[in-house]
Amino acid sequence: MRDYGSGMLANIRIVMVNPTHPGNIGAVARAMKTMGLVDLWLVAPKYFPHEDATARAAGAVDVLERARVVLSFDEAIADCGLVLGASARVRTISWPQLSVREAARQAITLAPSAHVAMVLGAERVGLTNMQLDRCHALVQIPANPEYASLNIAAAAQVIAYELRMACLERDVTAASAQPTHVPAPEQELERFYEHLRQTMIAVKFLDPENPRQLMRRVRRLFNRAMPDTMELNILRGILAAVDQLGKKSK
Amino acid sequence: MRDYGSGMLANIRIVMVNPTHPGNIGAVARAMKTMGLVDLWLVAPKYFPHEDATARAAGAVDVLERARVVLSFDEAIADCGLVLGASARVRTISWPQLSVREAARQAITLAPSAHVAMVLGAERVGLTNMQLDRCHALVQIPANPEYASLNIAAAAQVIAYELRMACLERDVTAASAQPTHVPAPEQELERFYEHLRQTMIAVKFLDPENPRQLMRRVRRLFNRAMPDTMELNILRGILAAVDQLGKKSK
Repeated sequence: MRDYGSGMLANIRIVMVNPTHPGNIGAVARAMKTMGLVDLWLVAPKYFPHEDATARAAGAVDVLERARVVLSFDEAIADCGLVLGASARVRTISWPQLSVREAARQAITLAPSAHVAMVLGAERVGLTNMQLDRCHALVQIPANPEYASLNIAAAAQVIAYELRMACLERDVTAASAQPTHVPAPEQELERFYEHLRQTMIAVKFLDPENPRQLMRRVRRLFNRAMPDTMELNILRGILAAVDQLGKKSK
Repeated sequence: MRDYGSGMLANIRIVMVNPTHPGNIGAVARAMKTMGLVDLWLVAPKYFPHEDATARAAGAVDVLERARVVLSFDEAIADCGLVLGASARVRTISWPQLSVREAARQAITLAPSAHVAMVLGAERVGLTNMQLDRCHALVQIPANPEYASLNIAAAAQVIAYELRMACLERDVTAASAQPTHVPAPEQELERFYEHLRQTMIAVKFLDPENPRQLMRRVRRLFNRAMPDTMELNILRGILAAVDQLGKKSK
C-alpha cells in the first residue's frame, strides 16, 4: 500500500530541544513513524544514542538512526520557513497561538515549498522565551485546564496525528492549489530583526538601556505576516534608506 | 477556568478489555484526564490495583480510584447506546469503520442522551471477533500503513483528544468567547499606510514619480499580519522617530 502522505510529511521536521530522558527520544521517534514523519532533529540531547531510546523506539529505530544531532537551537531552525513551538507552560505575554489542528494545516500547506519545524521543548522546562521569540506561533493542544499534563510522547503523538490528518485532508481536496506565498528562511528574518533593532536605536525610538517589550512585540507582528524574501528586501531597503539619512544628520 | 467540555465528556466511558500491563492502565487514565474524560471501566484486568498503574497515572490517580472493575465485556457495555471498538488488527471480514474523528463526533452527538463506550482491546491481541460483533463500528486511527504500531496509551491519547475536540467544536459559544487578537479598524491601518508612504518618500526610498508596485507589496505584507492598535502605534512611533531625524538632517 502506498503512503500518499509521505511526500509532504517528509518535509516536516520534529525538533526536540535539550531532551533529558533518552526514553522520550525513542517514544517521540515511534510516535512520528506511526504517522509517517521521518525527520527528527535533536538539539544538544543529554544522552544520545542510548539503549532506552532504542528500546522505546520499537520499530522506529530507523528514525533514530537518521536523526540529526545539532548543538544549538539556531542550527535546527535556520533554514525553516515556518517554526512552530509546542510548549505547555502558560505565558504572561501572549505569543500568537494556534491550536494543533490549525498549526498542522499551516504546516502542511507550506511543506511543499519550505522546511517546517515543529519544536518540542525540554521535558520539565519547555521552551524559553528567547526560543519562543524565534517561533512564528505557539502550538497549543486543547487540554483539560484542570490537568493539562501530557507527557512529551503523548504530545508528539497528537501533533504527529494532526499532521497526518492535515495531509490526508489535503490529498482529498485535490492538491491542485499551489502555495502562493513562500516565507523567507528564518535566518533572513533574523537578520531583518537585527537591522530593525539597530535602526530603531539609531533613530532613538528604542532605548537599549530600557528596551521594554518592544522587539518582542515587533517580532510577534512580523512573525504573523511571515514575510517572503522580496518583502524582507523591501523592508531592509527602507531601513538602509533611513540609515543613510541618519549619517547625513550627524 | 471552567472546563466546558466536562459535561458531555463525563458520559463517555473508556473500556479496557483484559489489560495485561498495569502500567498501561495508568497511562490510559492519564491520557483520559488530560482531555477531560473521567469514566474508566476495566474488564478483568490481570493486575489491578497495582503500583505501576498508580505511577504511570501521575496526576490522574483519581481516575484510577473511581475506575469500575467488571468481570465480563457484556457488563461493561450493557447500558450503552453506542459502542465503538478501537482495534489495530486488520480484519479479513470488514466491520463498519469510522475514522477516530468521525467516531468522536458521533460519540459527542449521542453523549447527552446515551452512554457511549469507547472500547480498547487487550495490548497484544486486540478485540476478538465476538467482541467486535457487539460494537456499532470499528474506530480506525489513520496511521502509516508501513508502521501503524501505536501503543495503547498513544492510541488512547489520540482518541481522548478527538473526543475533546469534537466536544469543543460543538460548544461553539465557548470557542468564540475569547478572541486573542483584535485587528485595528481599517481606517487606522490606512493612516499608517499614508504615514509610511510619506516617510518612504522623505528617506528617498520611494520615488513618487515612479512608485512601481512598492506600496502594493507593503500593503500585502501588513494586511496579512492584521496589526492591532498597539502594534500600529509602535509602527507609527518608529516612523515619527524617523521623521524627527529627517528634520535634523535638513
